Amino acid sequence: MTFDYQRVYQHGTLALLVPGLFTGTLSVADLLTHGDFGIGTAHGLAGEMIILDGQAYQVTGEGQVNQLAPTDMVPFATVHFQAPELPNQTLGTVTKAELEAQTLAQQPLKNLFFAVKVTGRFKKMHTRAVEAQQEPYPNLTDATRVQPEFEQDGVTGTLVGYYAPTLYQGAAVAGYHVHFLNTAHDFGGHVLDYVIEDAQLTVQPFETFEQHFPSQDTDFLNSDFDLKAINADIEEAEH
Amino acid sequence: MTFDYQRVYQHGTLALLVPGLFTGTLSVADLLTHGDFGIGTAHGLAGEMIILDGQAYQVTGEGQVNQLAPTDMVPFATVHFQAPELPNQTLGTVTKAELEAQTLAQQPLKNLFFAVKVTGRFKKMHTRAVEAQQEPYPNLTDATRVQPEFEQDGVTGTLVGYYAPTLYQGAAVAGYHVHFLNTAHDFGGHVLDYVIEDAQLTVQPFETFEQHFPSQDTDFLNSDFDLKAINADIEEAEH
Repeated sequence: MTFDYQRVYQHGTLALLVPGLFTGTLSVADLLTHGDFGIGTAHGLAGEMIILDGQAYQVTGEGQVNQLAPTDMVPFATVHFQAPELPNQTLGTVTKAELEAQTLAQQPLKNLFFAVKVTGRFKKMHTRAVEAQQEPYPNLTDATRVQPEFEQDGVTGTLVGYYAPTLYQGAAVAGYHVHFLNTAHDFGGHVLDYVIEDAQLTVQPFETFEQHFPSQDTDFLNSDFDLKAINADIEEAEH
Repeated sequence: MTFDYQRVYQHGTLALLVPGLFTGTLSVADLLTHGDFGIGTAHGLAGEMIILDGQAYQVTGEGQVNQLAPTDMVPFATVHFQAPELPNQTLGTVTKAELEAQTLAQQPLKNLFFAVKVTGRFKKMHTRAVEAQQEPYPNLTDATRVQPEFEQDGVTGTLVGYYAPTLYQGAAVAGYHVHFLNTAHDFGGHVLDYVIEDAQLTVQPFETFEQHFPSQDTDFLNSDFDLKAINADIEEAEH
């Protein structure tokens, strides 16, 4: 099998989550046929998902890390096949703000969807994780009003995620959206802040953005989406 | 070769055209590997493109119809493989407004990107075609300020295009966007209005929207896109 390293695959669209469509509509097994690294959330908005080396992990609102089963369903996820021969950049002490600015300044990347992967040791890692919601689901703003936060100093692990140009707002969060999992598999989540100590960075730009919609999901098919309101809510919930 | 009839492929994004990125960045030959029906424009915003049965035609601002060569380049196009076994609906006298409302009312289609194809006889067909632009390119609003219009009564041909839900605004024009070519290949363009006399309609919904970006194009990579301004300009230029 050959992989298209120029392609990023997304199931669902961020706009779906805004009115509370948190039902899982794609299995983890199906998702992993489209990539071996990525991020997302689980059925019911149950925590932060991170996919590393073809394995899907969930960081729950309690801060617990679970491996997801192939039959687990996800409402929203973004994955790609990590290219084996990307230039590896070695990083010393770098803050989140510094890394994001440096990465974006590379080549002209600002209008391309790209993946970032940072593996190594972090002086500080500050995450959060959304709590699983119960039906009838609230909207995203209400679901994310309270989100437990976690912090560790001196932690080894992998940060994975994406930069989406403003052109993709609505489909994805414009800007960076990255998740973290430590090597011990007992700490991670949606990344709020970090300071790198010693790590390897890879940046993988994509020329194709493939969006897969839950075309059999009645709730999705019947929803009324108001894109202006959705973009405003995305700003509030995700930043 | 097997075709994915659930997939629609788009090269470029409508937002690209707004600031005037009209340079062709994909060959017609490459485009046709992703679909045998579709619409778009040619290098330099030179007219309205329609793809029927794997052949790409251009309706120029002078109303002339040309067949495009495999080496011709396009800045923006949307194509799909027409499924062979779609339900065929026979239409009598139906206006554009009636057809659009009837089509959207089928199943719950409102949140899916879908193709429409109408083949047969039209009592009236009213089109327009944008004129080729010269470098340095103006922006889309200026380029489309004056667009020649064409009208024929009692014309036989094929209408092809797409409905994009509001979720896709920015990537595509939200709503219907359809082109027409008559059977004699001497009349067509971007469809403004029509009345069907006797025709066959097919509707093909997609679960995957694949967007391909001109990741090697320096003008694209370096552009500053303002999505709010772009959405306002799309409204003005395309409706």
